[in-house]
Amino acid sequence: MIGKNERLIRLALEEDIGPGDVTTDTLIEPDRVERATIVAKESFVLAGLELAQEVFRSLDSAMSFDTSSHDGDSIESGDEILKVTGKLHALLTGERTALNFLQRLSGIATFTRKFVDRTRGAGVRITDTRKTTPGWRKLEKYAVRMGGARNHRFGLYDGILIKDNHIKACGGITEAVERVRKNQGQFLRIEVEVTDLKEVEEALKSGVDIIMLDNMDINGIKRSIGFIGDRALVEVSGGVSLDSVAELAATGVDIISIGALTHSARAVDISMRVME
Amino acid sequence: MIGKNERLIRLALEEDIGPGDVTTDTLIEPDRVERATIVAKESFVLAGLELAQEVFRSLDSAMSFDTSSHDGDSIESGDEILKVTGKLHALLTGERTALNFLQRLSGIATFTRKFVDRTRGAGVRITDTRKTTPGWRKLEKYAVRMGGARNHRFGLYDGILIKDNHIKACGGITEAVERVRKNQGQFLRIEVEVTDLKEVEEALKSGVDIIMLDNMDINGIKRSIGFIGDRALVEVSGGVSLDSVAELAATGVDIISIGALTHSARAVDISMRVME
Amino acid sequence: MIGKNERLIRLALEEDIGPGDVTTDTLIEPDRVERATIVAKESFVLAGLELAQEVFRSLDSAMSFDTSSHDGDSIESGDEILKVTGKLHALLTGERTALNFLQRLSGIATFTRKFVDRTRGAGVRITDTRKTTPGWRKLEKYAVRMGGARNHRFGLYDGILIKDNHIKACGGITEAVERVRKNQGQFLRIEVEVTDLKEVEEALKSGVDIIMLDNMDINGIKRSIGFIGDRALVEVSGGVSLDSVAELAATGVDIISIGALTHSARAVDISMRVME
Amino acid sequence: MIGKNERLIRLALEEDIGPGDVTTDTLIEPDRVERATIVAKESFVLAGLELAQEVFRSLDSAMSFDTSSHDGDSIESGDEILKVTGKLHALLTGERTALNFLQRLSGIATFTRKFVDRTRGAGVRITDTRKTTPGWRKLEKYAVRMGGARNHRFGLYDGILIKDNHIKACGGITEAVERVRKNQGQFLRIEVEVTDLKEVEEALKSGVDIIMLDNMDINGIKRSIGFIGDRALVEVSGGVSLDSVAELAATGVDIISIGALTHSARAVDISMRVME
Amino acid sequence: MIGKNERLIRLALEEDIGPGDVTTDTLIEPDRVERATIVAKESFVLAGLELAQEVFRSLDSAMSFDTSSHDGDSIESGDEILKVTGKLHALLTGERTALNFLQRLSGIATFTRKFVDRTRGAGVRITDTRKTTPGWRKLEKYAVRMGGARNHRFGLYDGILIKDNHIKACGGITEAVERVRKNQGQFLRIEVEVTDLKEVEEALKSGVDIIMLDNMDINGIKRSIGFIGDRALVEVSGGVSLDSVAELAATGVDIISIGALTHSARAVDISMRVME
Amino acid sequence: MIGKNERLIRLALEEDIGPGDVTTDTLIEPDRVERATIVAKESFVLAGLELAQEVFRSLDSAMSFDTSSHDGDSIESGDEILKVTGKLHALLTGERTALNFLQRLSGIATFTRKFVDRTRGAGVRITDTRKTTPGWRKLEKYAVRMGGARNHRFGLYDGILIKDNHIKACGGITEAVERVRKNQGQFLRIEVEVTDLKEVEEALKSGVDIIMLDNMDINGIKRSIGFIGDRALVEVSGGVSLDSVAELAATGVDIISIGALTHSARAVDISMRVME
Repeated sequence: MIGKNERLIRLALEEDIGPGDVTTDTLIEPDRVERATIVAKESFVLAGLELAQEVFRSLDSAMSFDTSSHDGDSIESGDEILKVTGKLHALLTGERTALNFLQRLSGIATFTRKFVDRTRGAGVRITDTRKTTPGWRKLEKYAVRMGGARNHRFGLYDGILIKDNHIKACGGITEAVERVRKNQGQFLRIEVEVTDLKEVEEALKSGVDIIMLDNMDINGIKRSIGFIGDRALVEVSGGVSLDSVAELAATGVDIISIGALTHSARAVDISMRVME
Repeated sequence: MIGKNERLIRLALEEDIGPGDVTTDTLIEPDRVERATIVAKESFVLAGLELAQEVFRSLDSAMSFDTSSHDGDSIESGDEILKVTGKLHALLTGERTALNFLQRLSGIATFTRKFVDRTRGAGVRITDTRKTTPGWRKLEKYAVRMGGARNHRFGLYDGILIKDNHIKACGGITEAVERVRKNQGQFLRIEVEVTDLKEVEEALKSGVDIIMLDNMDINGIKRSIGFIGDRALVEVSGGVSLDSVAELAATGVDIISIGALTHSARAVDISMRVME
Repeated sequence: MIGKNERLIRLALEEDIGPGDVTTDTLIEPDRVERATIVAKESFVLAGLELAQEVFRSLDSAMSFDTSSHDGDSIESGDEILKVTGKLHALLTGERTALNFLQRLSGIATFTRKFVDRTRGAGVRITDTRKTTPGWRKLEKYAVRMGGARNHRFGLYDGILIKDNHIKACGGITEAVERVRKNQGQFLRIEVEVTDLKEVEEALKSGVDIIMLDNMDINGIKRSIGFIGDRALVEVSGGVSLDSVAELAATGVDIISIGALTHSARAVDISMRVME
Repeated sequence: MIGKNERLIRLALEEDIGPGDVTTDTLIEPDRVERATIVAKESFVLAGLELAQEVFRSLDSAMSFDTSSHDGDSIESGDEILKVTGKLHALLTGERTALNFLQRLSGIATFTRKFVDRTRGAGVRITDTRKTTPGWRKLEKYAVRMGGARNHRFGLYDGILIKDNHIKACGGITEAVERVRKNQGQFLRIEVEVTDLKEVEEALKSGVDIIMLDNMDINGIKRSIGFIGDRALVEVSGGVSLDSVAELAATGVDIISIGALTHSARAVDISMRVME
Repeated sequence: MIGKNERLIRLALEEDIGPGDVTTDTLIEPDRVERATIVAKESFVLAGLELAQEVFRSLDSAMSFDTSSHDGDSIESGDEILKVTGKLHALLTGERTALNFLQRLSGIATFTRKFVDRTRGAGVRITDTRKTTPGWRKLEKYAVRMGGARNHRFGLYDGILIKDNHIKACGGITEAVERVRKNQGQFLRIEVEVTDLKEVEEALKSGVDIIMLDNMDINGIKRSIGFIGDRALVEVSGGVSLDSVAELAATGVDIISIGALTHSARAVDISMRVME
Repeated sequence: MIGKNERLIRLALEEDIGPGDVTTDTLIEPDRVERATIVAKESFVLAGLELAQEVFRSLDSAMSFDTSSHDGDSIESGDEILKVTGKLHALLTGERTALNFLQRLSGIATFTRKFVDRTRGAGVRITDTRKTTPGWRKLEKYAVRMGGARNHRFGLYDGILIKDNHIKACGGITEAVERVRKNQGQFLRIEVEVTDLKEVEEALKSGVDIIMLDNMDINGIKRSIGFIGDRALVEVSGGVSLDSVAELAATGVDIISIGALTHSARAVDISMRVME
């Protein structure tokens, strides 16, 4: 369940429709009812089906839907994803906005699925990051789950992650972790970002729960994991690509976080046809 | 000038910060002032500089900025794009949101610039489409302009474009154009989407101002342009890639519209360092 | 179809009801259901029927309506325009707001119809202007259409109109038109405002699509129209009254735009009676 | 002091500017500063001066203003009401919205002043009604005060007024007044609307503070006032015009409320010139 | 009827749920339907029943309710106040917010009822003040009514109350009352706050409708009431407690206003059990 | 730092001022500047000082402040907490809202401080719960920190707490914990609520991080703590009072969470005097 996304849908319809759809307003009788079909033009992993329905429903509350697909499904080119029956005016006016949501979220789910597939069986957790499109955090993290991966923090409020800039500002890992530990709520673990073995050692000594190896090369990662053992969870981050992810997973790392899942997925190709 | 984007910035900060930045709140003294530098990690075309500043300013109204870059500039890897001086707390809390705006808009400008460069001198107008990220229409169209291309319609309200679904619903190009002409405001031209030469002919006969050749192959496009001559502007749309755009431009077409500019650009790599 | 006007209806109900209707709250049982009738107290052209219903429905979602009237209809004094059945409390609390919408929009439609009637057969297009009540642009332009006239631009975004202040700021018509043409989107024509024959000539030479004769006397208008011929559309604007409109229309002008349609129409007299 | 009207100003600018002023964006350099002068094109009573400034300031926060006029002043045709210095782009983009506020509010103040002038010395209170433009209640009631008249209720929450529909629903004036008295807050008086002498008598007997004579002819009004004497305040309402108001005032009535002040005032003629 | 409280409910759900209920999202199947029972854990006066239902309904629009209780009822410990049937996910996610509304409003109604009970028969009106929780004015004043007391002003707009700071700023009671009288709307009475007999006398002479004795001791109150007689309504305010209220009521005062009703009521104990 | 609370302040000012302060608008010259002093009428712990300033500033942006107090300070009766200089109109209109924020938040800080004082030295963490006033979550949790205690979860999103209803719905502690563990983000620990020793044992075996003893008697609590030892953190919740808290703390429990801190604190007495 994606949940209510009224605010973003409203923003989207306002920016597209403005004071009116000058083409459709003229051409289409206000009360004419037709059926439209949303069709895949390539193969992909579906995400955003309910959101597309919300878009149409917000233009015609009597809109009805017929589908056998679910978010997370693998779709083949040519598949009919969703049939929508309602006012033709609303179908034509909402088409682009509904497709814009679908094509972007499915694009993220599809790109994510490729990373998941390449690391299947390795026991590693693939996650997103906070490198999401502003305003789309919840939606894009939902699409990542539909692709089969897991979510990292939702925001700055539900996870403690001490990064390079924090460490520099505090004067060292030890100082930073100590300060956090004193104020830490009972529900949160502590993660710290490190860049070399010396920092790994300092982080471990300070007793953190998770260590993020930031932009380390494969040898540094292997040495770090060997050194850490069971004393903390290990996360790898930075520049992970489809080419490198399998080798990374094989190191025994616990978590691989990948910004590209949300910031560099391309949209998939989907179209809508009326009266078919 | 991008203009006021308060609503989206507020949405972005709310979703990232929520009730508070649990790491920074603990580590950083509320009144400590420092300088941060935003640095390019690859070469790209810049877009979103003012927006990034708006993000920081909305967290600390006394934030000051120092930069010699402008949106639209070509940036080299390692360039310092912007120096920001203000509360360290605001710098660290706003970092990700500011970078998320910058990396996406610059990504679009950069991808756009490539299409523009490959068609330079051909006298063709490269434009975006309405395939934008919901909620980001204005921003993404701004980034396209920074990349050197032009904007197509902003929405359904500022351009008449009769598409395949409209034609099917009305029973033909002629009928659709006639209906539109009767209700057309004095300020708008009429464009119609066609898929073959027979439709080109019908569109011309109905007296439209612009003809969009949708997903035609290169031969169909050449024949259509020859047939149309000076009688209407010609736009080509559908599946245009960096590989095909130069050949398309050489056909003498007036406008090439490309959805990928906004829906499939990857983010560029930008980071922030404090106290340097 | 007026479309969703939730924001303005909400503003209107909030400002009228505030924390509660102190009279009705005391007098009327919360669940009592009655029927009310909205009655014309003079003859007029109807506009706003759906909006009035939206007002009542936003106070009682189970409100039902019975009417044989449509926006655009000519209403006679004494006609029962709408029967509304629902909670008496909602009927009495919503009465004034519903009537305030109806009386203003119908006032505009009625005033507009008079201009349209006096120019019937002359082949001229009567339009409104941007001189509308702030917050009411869409509604008032809808009422103008119900009165039988056409809409000019909706705003600054869907039509290029180079006015006197633009020309002065740019240093001349030619300079202004050239600058616009370079940046003009493919969908928009160019209109320029002129005040004498010399400017008409300059505008024509610069190749604009529409020429607006601003506050010219009838002789100037005739001479200008003769001079322009088929080379551009001609619009007349400024101080048009019911007395002058027929003579203006007879000049063969294409468009007459009239600010008074929206800024100086008086409200029509409508009342509501319960339990009849 | 009008107070903050951000919500309506924002609505107004959004509906006029939308995604951008296509004419001014192209023609005017973003940072060019000029002065504009707002000039009266007829004589009127001024209202809305601060609001017009708020409009310009919301487009350019550095805008500065120079004026010797105040709301409530009598303005002569040709008077320079306000000089505005700031970004030329903001001046041209905000011109219409600022003028739309000024022309409507000054129109109401001007029309109101005529009623006040015709009843000067009669000791009667001229007031508005709740027949205001939805969304504009506060502004229009402010303009009425600038015209020299007084405000009736602001809404349903700050005055008890038992109207015909309430009386019919309760089964009589006596029943309605009794019910209200039992629940009445300590701060509010009670007013009841009556249509003939018999109802006047019943209202008086029930002990109300104010009696509204609704749509009575002049003889009925005189008889009612004679009968009521000092036992209650008397208000006359319904169809009051400039022609009838002096005779009404001479009857010794305490309050005359006039819907036309706000629902049927015509806008006054005001324009803006740049660079003069 | 409390009316629509969407804005506060939305604020409440947003602050509690944020991006998701991490416990319930994992544990509960999205479509599973169950019944929950809201149970009193102590005896109290009920207020907020509809509001609690609005909370659940805003999470699951198909939620159904079964209750024989009404706001204002005396509830015994162990009573089942409300049965709610709907999605188990919505029940568990909405539980705390629904209970938070119920426990606070019922707390106020319960505390209020005690004051009302101790003054029953004395002919005095017990009222609240404006010392309410910001954002909760309407709700808390509703709960006060459910407790059996009456409402004082809703805000600064629906009652004229000249307080100590106003008097000091104007230079005296007489000056203040005169200024108010000149501008007073026809619907509002005037109340003035006094602190000793000399001010009582001055207030009476100025002709006010209501006199508030602020923080006077019992003897001062008695003397003031004797002196005022029928010439004005008398209100007592300041530091009224359950211990002192009966003696105060016996003085013959008309109104006793008590800030503690809303600012110092403790919440009552209510819990929710699922599947019982 | 409380942060921006614009939304709640705006709600509060809207509900109190509505269309205008009818007393102050009449009595006070719009531009008159004075100084007001906020004074403690009893001793308490201060919270909300910045918020009170935000209230005044939102009515007069030029308001200036003078104070030597800080949130968290112990205030004595008679202390001058804050001097505010600005428009007298804004001072009088904002007084009640500013005090309403201060008196409630300081009430919570004061009540919290008592619990903290009684457990000082016991090494126990006193926390609030989610039993807060809807819309006030962040503010009330801030006041709790000013009182010297710590915050529990902010909402349902930043802590996993498996409660009785979850356990019942899942069929047991073991099943619930297993299901959560499978989906748990890397940043969150798991807490489970238990009511007897048998459940303590089951919870421990399932490997949870924190065990909440819900409404257990003191003997049950002691036995549970002895049994758990170092294997998990122990939290006690339910019906904790000032009388019982010291004995509870002495058991060696890690965390005591207390709903009364936020739902049953009484407001402290604070007033404002102008021109002193």
